[in-house]
Amino acid sequence: MPHIQLPEGLPGIRGAMAFRPETARPLNDLVEILLHAPNSLTPGERELIATYVSSENDCYYCQTIHGAIAAASLGDDEALVKKVKFDLENADISEKLKALLVIAGQVQKGGKQVTAEAVSRARDEGATDIEIHDTVLIAAAFCMFNRYVDGLATTQPRDDEMYRERGKRVARDGYVTVSKEYLPAEATV
Amino acid sequence: MPHIQLPEGLPGIRGAMAFRPETARPLNDLVEILLHAPNSLTPGERELIATYVSSENDCYYCQTIHGAIAAASLGDDEALVKKVKFDLENADISEKLKALLVIAGQVQKGGKQVTAEAVSRARDEGATDIEIHDTVLIAAAFCMFNRYVDGLATTQPRDDEMYRERGKRVARDGYVTVSKEYLPAEATV
Repeated sequence: MPHIQLPEGLPGIRGAMAFRPETARPLNDLVEILLHAPNSLTPGERELIATYVSSENDCYYCQTIHGAIAAASLGDDEALVKKVKFDLENADISEKLKALLVIAGQVQKGGKQVTAEAVSRARDEGATDIEIHDTVLIAAAFCMFNRYVDGLATTQPRDDEMYRERGKRVARDGYVTVSKEYLPAEATV
Repeated sequence: MPHIQLPEGLPGIRGAMAFRPETARPLNDLVEILLHAPNSLTPGERELIATYVSSENDCYYCQTIHGAIAAASLGDDEALVKKVKFDLENADISEKLKALLVIAGQVQKGGKQVTAEAVSRARDEGATDIEIHDTVLIAAAFCMFNRYVDGLATTQPRDDEMYRERGKRVARDGYVTVSKEYLPAEATV
């Protein structure tokens, strides 16, 4: 049961966002820019970073919905998402993305855990400063989202099909558009 | 030295925000609503939550600037800020704020660490659902900001007077207004 009275029927962060639309707006704007807006990293690559950090933080809702968005963005490859979560060095992803995921994993442990060696490895694999910046900020942002979702003890249904269906829609339409379904109009302008 | 090439002369998060104004805008909007906008918790109380979490995360820049904003909001009481960081149960703050700071400390460790007992204590001391929500989100957000600032290895000068002066200005004018000094106009509309 959630720690506070959240609107019913809205799992995970959606209930928290509907409860407090004033903060939902910048949160949706942030995740739209970080994960869905045009970027030299594909949406699928960025969603893998979000999924990996959420998995390390053991947040069921976030790792499942972002895993579903990642899979939808990567040709419905759910096996790849699982491989990245549990054995990223042997996953069928680029060496650059592996190096960025290592940085993301360091950020998850703490900002001071990021090493010059991990940054050098990413740069050697062709990562730009913006890509390194965005990796750090995506990982940091999911340390926020995961704590927000679990810290309020939000409802997190075990319903693979719900996440899969929603993952496809967010992959297609983005966060701000899909959030209009459950947020008041003034929070999504 | 920062892990990526950040604009010079802008310490802490300011360099990162100037490097990536697209994400700076929702980050400033979020912190403006959480810490500066009208709320049943005073700006000083909310800045103490931000300072406490930043101290637990050992982020020098964030705990020092938010500590300075908190002090400026609380009649220049720097001793109180220090007391909250190191001995909050004996600090001269309300029982409600103590209970909220305990929740914030649990969020800092991880979302699943928040206990029903800590939430009950806050409620018994008069905290509302919105105040509990905002405490969780402030604490979660500073787990992001701290990782962003330290994860990029930003410049964090040891210059008490700089933080004190800036703290007074942010306490007076808020985040979005002060950020206009170093962000391009389109990032602060």
